[in-house]
Amino acid sequence: MEIPLININYPPWLAGAIDWEQQYVGDDDKMAVAILLSRLNVSHGTGEPFGAAIFRSDNGRLVSVGMSQVVRQNNSVLHAEVMAIMLAEQRLQVFNLRVGGQRHELFSSCEPCAMCLGATHWSSVTRLVCGATREDAHQIGFDEGPVFPASYQYLEERGVTIKRGVQREAARTVIEAYAAGGGLIHNRQA
Amino acid sequence: MEIPLININYPPWLAGAIDWEQQYVGDDDKMAVAILLSRLNVSHGTGEPFGAAIFRSDNGRLVSVGMSQVVRQNNSVLHAEVMAIMLAEQRLQVFNLRVGGQRHELFSSCEPCAMCLGATHWSSVTRLVCGATREDAHQIGFDEGPVFPASYQYLEERGVTIKRGVQREAARTVIEAYAAGGGLIHNRQA
Repeated sequence: MEIPLININYPPWLAGAIDWEQQYVGDDDKMAVAILLSRLNVSHGTGEPFGAAIFRSDNGRLVSVGMSQVVRQNNSVLHAEVMAIMLAEQRLQVFNLRVGGQRHELFSSCEPCAMCLGATHWSSVTRLVCGATREDAHQIGFDEGPVFPASYQYLEERGVTIKRGVQREAARTVIEAYAAGGGLIHNRQA
Repeated sequence: MEIPLININYPPWLAGAIDWEQQYVGDDDKMAVAILLSRLNVSHGTGEPFGAAIFRSDNGRLVSVGMSQVVRQNNSVLHAEVMAIMLAEQRLQVFNLRVGGQRHELFSSCEPCAMCLGATHWSSVTRLVCGATREDAHQIGFDEGPVFPASYQYLEERGVTIKRGVQREAARTVIEAYAAGGGLIHNRQA
């Protein structure tokens, strides 16, 4: 077998969709980016109704974005938070987001699944802000895996500040629209 | 910003290191592949002491492999299990490993961290087999994230058969050799 390559791309609509130069101030502004990504992902038919964005804590600059790409790219790892973490580290050429000495914040339009909460741990972001809840994702049929109150506590004990429910209604609206439009629920299959 | 690409590769030594045509029979044979990958990753200086492999359940054919690539590729998501899951799905062009109708087994040289246990959930493998334990990884300083007994139970309740401690000593030997050789412990930083 030849040495394999795994190539991950972003949907073409991302060009021009986001203002990369803006200084984002406040949690509502930053969450709006994550929710916009989730909405555009659904409206363009490029993926599931979840978006994420990573900002530098000191100046509010946008470092990276992500949107769920599981079905489009045949890759069950490509949740919004994973995309955002991989892109941020690639751009900064670091293996976690504290190596360069800066602090970073991860905004997700929905509370992370088990995989993404683990990825959040390794990424060394110092803050996690969530929009819709695990229950909102469950409501349309997604099975988010083993996340417990103790999972959040584990990260908090290691210095991650966590805030949930920021613009929950706006984030949930996208999730519900995806389901109403017949969007695929790509759960594990037994 | 241009549409970003994330390119993930495999270390060059993989060519010729593994027999892709062999029919692997039994858990010891299969775990030996995962441990070999962990050992070669360390001896070639291309990553952390963890390896993984995915096999088709019905005929024991090797479908994909992975090894931790966090530091080498500046990507905290690239644990051995994640690499193996992404490659298997890319090769089969499926968004989980049950879509094609086959059953698959994930062998990991060490019990999965929180992220990888979540990735295991989404991958739809029907069996997870582990070598070294979480404690073996902790012993050299890796902080594997929020995994609890209930996390394993969650997967089992959804049809994943889990077996732990297969060739634990051989797998642990690689982990300890990595630490003894001054290998980097890439934990989250506060």
